[in-house]
Amino acid sequence: MTDFAALAETIAKQAKSAARAMAQLSAGVKATALERMAAALVDAAETIQAANAQDVAVAKKAGLSGALIDRLTLTPKRIGEMATGLREVAALPDPVGEIERMWVRPNGMRVGRMRVPLGVIGIIYESRPNVTAEAAGLCLKAGNAVILRGGSEAIRSNIAIGRVLQEAGAKAGLPDGAVIVVEQTDRGLVNALLKLDRYIDLIIPRGGEGLIRAVLEQSTIPVIKHDKGVCHIYVDEAADLAMAEAVCVNAKVQRPGTCNAMETLLVHQSVAPTFLPAIVARLQKAGVEIRGCERTRALVPGVKPATEEDWHAEYLDLILAVRVVETMDAAIDHIVTYGSQHTDAIMTQDYQRAMAFVRRVDSSAVLVNASTRLNDGGQFGLGAEIGISTGRLHARGPMGIDELTTKKFIVLGDGQIRE
Amino acid sequence: MTDFAALAETIAKQAKSAARAMAQLSAGVKATALERMAAALVDAAETIQAANAQDVAVAKKAGLSGALIDRLTLTPKRIGEMATGLREVAALPDPVGEIERMWVRPNGMRVGRMRVPLGVIGIIYESRPNVTAEAAGLCLKAGNAVILRGGSEAIRSNIAIGRVLQEAGAKAGLPDGAVIVVEQTDRGLVNALLKLDRYIDLIIPRGGEGLIRAVLEQSTIPVIKHDKGVCHIYVDEAADLAMAEAVCVNAKVQRPGTCNAMETLLVHQSVAPTFLPAIVARLQKAGVEIRGCERTRALVPGVKPATEEDWHAEYLDLILAVRVVETMDAAIDHIVTYGSQHTDAIMTQDYQRAMAFVRRVDSSAVLVNASTRLNDGGQFGLGAEIGISTGRLHARGPMGIDELTTKKFIVLGDGQIRE
Repeated sequence: MTDFAALAETIAKQAKSAARAMAQLSAGVKATALERMAAALVDAAETIQAANAQDVAVAKKAGLSGALIDRLTLTPKRIGEMATGLREVAALPDPVGEIERMWVRPNGMRVGRMRVPLGVIGIIYESRPNVTAEAAGLCLKAGNAVILRGGSEAIRSNIAIGRVLQEAGAKAGLPDGAVIVVEQTDRGLVNALLKLDRYIDLIIPRGGEGLIRAVLEQSTIPVIKHDKGVCHIYVDEAADLAMAEAVCVNAKVQRPGTCNAMETLLVHQSVAPTFLPAIVARLQKAGVEIRGCERTRALVPGVKPATEEDWHAEYLDLILAVRVVETMDAAIDHIVTYGSQHTDAIMTQDYQRAMAFVRRVDSSAVLVNASTRLNDGGQFGLGAEIGISTGRLHARGPMGIDELTTKKFIVLGDGQIRE
Repeated sequence: MTDFAALAETIAKQAKSAARAMAQLSAGVKATALERMAAALVDAAETIQAANAQDVAVAKKAGLSGALIDRLTLTPKRIGEMATGLREVAALPDPVGEIERMWVRPNGMRVGRMRVPLGVIGIIYESRPNVTAEAAGLCLKAGNAVILRGGSEAIRSNIAIGRVLQEAGAKAGLPDGAVIVVEQTDRGLVNALLKLDRYIDLIIPRGGEGLIRAVLEQSTIPVIKHDKGVCHIYVDEAADLAMAEAVCVNAKVQRPGTCNAMETLLVHQSVAPTFLPAIVARLQKAGVEIRGCERTRALVPGVKPATEEDWHAEYLDLILAVRVVETMDAAIDHIVTYGSQHTDAIMTQDYQRAMAFVRRVDSSAVLVNASTRLNDGGQFGLGAEIGISTGRLHARGPMGIDELTTKKFIVLGDGQIRE
């Protein structure tokens, strides 16, 4: 039997030691390291694909679904995208050492907050092996060490990618242990790692509810969840209906498998007779299955009935729940009751209701007259993101490299004491 | 046997419901409520003191230490200070709804971050009953509901204070459940509360290492620790020695029982022969016991030897560990090895070393030429603080009302979709 506690401690200690060195690296060294990693991924494409082919073969033999095998498969195009992603992160401004402002206290001391790396970040994820390179790039850029623990179905691919990143990083001056791919996929080892709060500073679980719940229950390390999105658009009585139609189609159809795609459409009763037949026709033409409340079904013949389960559902698919509401208050009540505080939008030209919706709906992003699909680090101008946090602390919404740092107070004095 | 899970759920649900209402209250209602609570505490001073006298009597009978009984005792002066504290918090700017900046994306959408309350905050603390009013005031000002679970030795005082706050709050328009004092001090109930991450958003444990460790291990809710401070001052070879002397005396003597008091003094070898005899004499005159390394003892006769344990010690008392170091690097190594990343300072007139120390020492506050005792929300200009966070995420260092809020993204668009 493997001694998971001892192995976990070895891994975490090595990462902690690397994190101390990473925190002192110049912006230039980190950027160059990421660029070299990008080049090395392309150079090693064949080796990576060979390892990936083994993972795919095992997955097929085990009868995994087509969608899962698609997520698992690394084509030359996907490897190229990993490299491009690393180069984009390399080009972002380095956040470490930034001081947003300093203020002067009555006793003359100057106080400010300086961004510093978080330390050691553990990422626990599922099948997509490209996360290995993306997450490593973001964590390293922010001056952290990273421990990557992917799913067992992608383990050969992850190890291959990890080796390429480690070798290229070492040549560019990154410390040993800056990128660690956990090669043992046993649950016992993960659980041992999750207790090492004296070495590991943050855990980011990315995956299904079961994974996130298990991590939350085991971890003594702070966890930032990237959880599900049951996203709503409320079409108000004062909406520009042509705009609402374009935004709703985009929010549902542009990429339905993402956490910020619309799952439930709420329509004010006064515009429902005009709006619903038109939008349903357009969505159905795009292949969307509609499940409606009674009033929706009365307005649009042939729509399936929505059940209580549909209001809770994160379909991640071409399915949409539709409900007619009497007032904006009823729409907000629905969002509070069934939503996941991920991304919610109002379509309206009414100033008062737009502002009230923004104030009253408490989601990671609240949008007026814009598609829920825009809740994204790149779209918001944060640069690349490691995901969309559904937690409330430290990071909420798209989580970029700034959120992979922390801030310490610095004080520049000339002899101040506490009176 | 009490059904702790059911009781915990009742408490947490009530708080969650109150938190939703709190988030919508105007700044005026919250400020008025805090002012009324302050007045009510003074009006009810006799009732509170009567309840407190029972706690004190039980504590004395149980043979608790004098220091603990002092912390437990509520004099009219302390009740007055609680009221003053509430009035000060009432007067702070309301953080809810603040948008620091909005930026415009190439597609014309405006993106910003709006401060909103965290939700439900659980405070787990030990003997000081004045924490009940202080913590409640800060949490409410930031628009949160608060669950207060103090120590069993102060339970009668806490319940009495809680009732006064609840009644005054209700009259001013706060929802039921905005302030909940947990009346059952059973460990089982706390542990049940710590699992309710679907209702409670943040846990702040304030107390000894045992309390904090127990909370970290049980909680599935994010925890912000207020842990120990092993604080250092490094007196560099380029220090202004008169300034260093004044700062070191202040950092050790002004209030030795606090987490930001200096516990270890590190002195560069080139100034040690001049500096150490003078500072040791001054500190000894102030009643400080010195425990020194060999080189310290060679320079100042009669100093006790420091052991390995002394470098780790948070004395919270008039005791100081002293070590002579060969270089600034050795001082930083000492701080990395033995420090608690709480508060550390350098005394130097050398620009290069001042900047290197600020960059390389990773503590919640790093100071140049200023007393460690200044690491405090009031001193830094944040207004009142709920404590000094030793965690790295969300809040680090003094934690004011801003850190009792979170930020959601808001987007003001005119029909933007994801291309």
